[in-house]
Amino acid sequence: MRALIEEVIAEELDNPSLDVKSDAAIVDFESERLVMTTDGFTVQPLVFPGGSIGKLAVCGTVNDLAVAPAKPVYLSLNVIVEEGVTIELFQRVIHDVGESAREAEVRIVTGDTKVVPKGQAGGIYLVTTGVGIPSRGSGASDFGIETIVDGDRLLISGPIGDHGAAVMLAREEFGLSGNLRSDCANIFPLVNSISDLDGLRFLRDPTRGGLATVANEVSKCSGMNVILEESLVPIRPEVRSVCEILGFDPYYLACEGRVLAVASPEASDIILSHWRTLEQGAQAACIGEIAVNEIGNSLVRLTTNLGGERILDELEQEPLPRIC
Amino acid sequence: MRALIEEVIAEELDNPSLDVKSDAAIVDFESERLVMTTDGFTVQPLVFPGGSIGKLAVCGTVNDLAVAPAKPVYLSLNVIVEEGVTIELFQRVIHDVGESAREAEVRIVTGDTKVVPKGQAGGIYLVTTGVGIPSRGSGASDFGIETIVDGDRLLISGPIGDHGAAVMLAREEFGLSGNLRSDCANIFPLVNSISDLDGLRFLRDPTRGGLATVANEVSKCSGMNVILEESLVPIRPEVRSVCEILGFDPYYLACEGRVLAVASPEASDIILSHWRTLEQGAQAACIGEIAVNEIGNSLVRLTTNLGGERILDELEQEPLPRIC
Repeated sequence: MRALIEEVIAEELDNPSLDVKSDAAIVDFESERLVMTTDGFTVQPLVFPGGSIGKLAVCGTVNDLAVAPAKPVYLSLNVIVEEGVTIELFQRVIHDVGESAREAEVRIVTGDTKVVPKGQAGGIYLVTTGVGIPSRGSGASDFGIETIVDGDRLLISGPIGDHGAAVMLAREEFGLSGNLRSDCANIFPLVNSISDLDGLRFLRDPTRGGLATVANEVSKCSGMNVILEESLVPIRPEVRSVCEILGFDPYYLACEGRVLAVASPEASDIILSHWRTLEQGAQAACIGEIAVNEIGNSLVRLTTNLGGERILDELEQEPLPRIC
Repeated sequence: MRALIEEVIAEELDNPSLDVKSDAAIVDFESERLVMTTDGFTVQPLVFPGGSIGKLAVCGTVNDLAVAPAKPVYLSLNVIVEEGVTIELFQRVIHDVGESAREAEVRIVTGDTKVVPKGQAGGIYLVTTGVGIPSRGSGASDFGIETIVDGDRLLISGPIGDHGAAVMLAREEFGLSGNLRSDCANIFPLVNSISDLDGLRFLRDPTRGGLATVANEVSKCSGMNVILEESLVPIRPEVRSVCEILGFDPYYLACEGRVLAVASPEASDIILSHWRTLEQGAQAACIGEIAVNEIGNSLVRLTTNLGGERILDELEQEPLPRIC
């Protein structure tokens, strides 16, 4: 088992910086300021339409670096695998790690594998830690959630909830996945095209807890209201259908390949025009705006298609365990 | 549960670089070359004489950086915790993470927690990833396992097998742990005092697989024989007793606070004198030497106290699952 694991990992992830026999990697890094982030992945099922835990583990950490904003450079990879996982499944997952890393132009430079008894790791858990180079000057003071002002706009790079809906559907084993696929992808190209813009205030990938959770974070930290327009928020019909069947709210479903940006009106126009030149950003949209809050706590308000209003609260509890 | 976890982590690990609400940390780093390493920890039991999975997770990664050799600077921390773990146990483990990080003067700058169903994480799994600054010039060509030559000596900073024996005994629940404690500790002070020495060829912390496994790595990669003298290898009487009772071989038991160095005879004398000034290195010893191999494959030979010889083979399989 261990020998097979080492063979699979060496073959799928081989790159000049990775020495599978060494405990630490020495790498060059063109900056004396770095951005570091880490994430654990325990998604069930391990493979789902549009991706796998392997693809997710690379994209998730690359995306956290991207929105910092930073250029992702190096990753480490930890694998915790149960005895009894088939070598085919293990190979598929590690293959996806390698392929996603190559696509994102990051190098996996160090790693570790632990084998635990059957039943003690949901098949496979992955942890990736990423190091990147800050891409907006050195700790730019004109960027950050606290720089958001009245009249700023909220932009999303594509339809919301695809990942959450695809994983939930795959888990339910309805046998009808249809065209629904996770949006799991590297968002660095979307961010890289805009990260130097004046008037860009904030970037975030709406993963766990979805758009509503990031919007609440914006509202809470800026002390202003976030007004979203239901008619402007891109949601695929398939995602709407799954939400109706399974009783989920698309505003709280995870995306794994989208960016939410908050920017001045002028910057917003430029961001949308950049995003729409990219395949990933073809459905990018302005979905709302920031408004000064005058009474009580700031909140997130959704203006519905029927002209009504709905408050999108913070989630009280984990809505969808283990979707990422 | 999630709220409690966040409170515990924020309280125990609080430092200027850690923003528990942010997904990535921006940190300054006084080098354009970095050393990166990662390790996963699945030890059972989670708390053992001399330490816990929390202390082990910090020391293990700090030590892998130390022997690179590098000065450990930043760590990330991932926690995978089962539903149902008591908050007292969780707090103890995270407290040990924080305390060990402060003692080792490393900062935990980013982290992530995943909660999984009961039974799916052996209580708690931890992953730490470390970034450090190379401490021996920039990728020194006079250091590394391939620079080892005939007549070099092998040095160990203290008694072997304490960690492996303490954890195995704790797991057996004999109720008689006696004075046996894990040696789990930060070895950077041991390494820092000698890492610039001319004639220092190689450093390694003999963790999984113990001294015999590192000695085999040296032999295999250098193509030379490693000759160890049983009478010179420090082993505590308690460790010998546990090995006799449980049927283990101390040469294959993990250490978590020791360094093995290979160095020229001149450098060896200096290293031992440095080490012996430190409490951690009080029992440091020269335990053997490197000899040209003239027939067949290179190997590790132990000269026994009775004047015989024993070959210490590479381990064919994992001897002691989940001791680190």
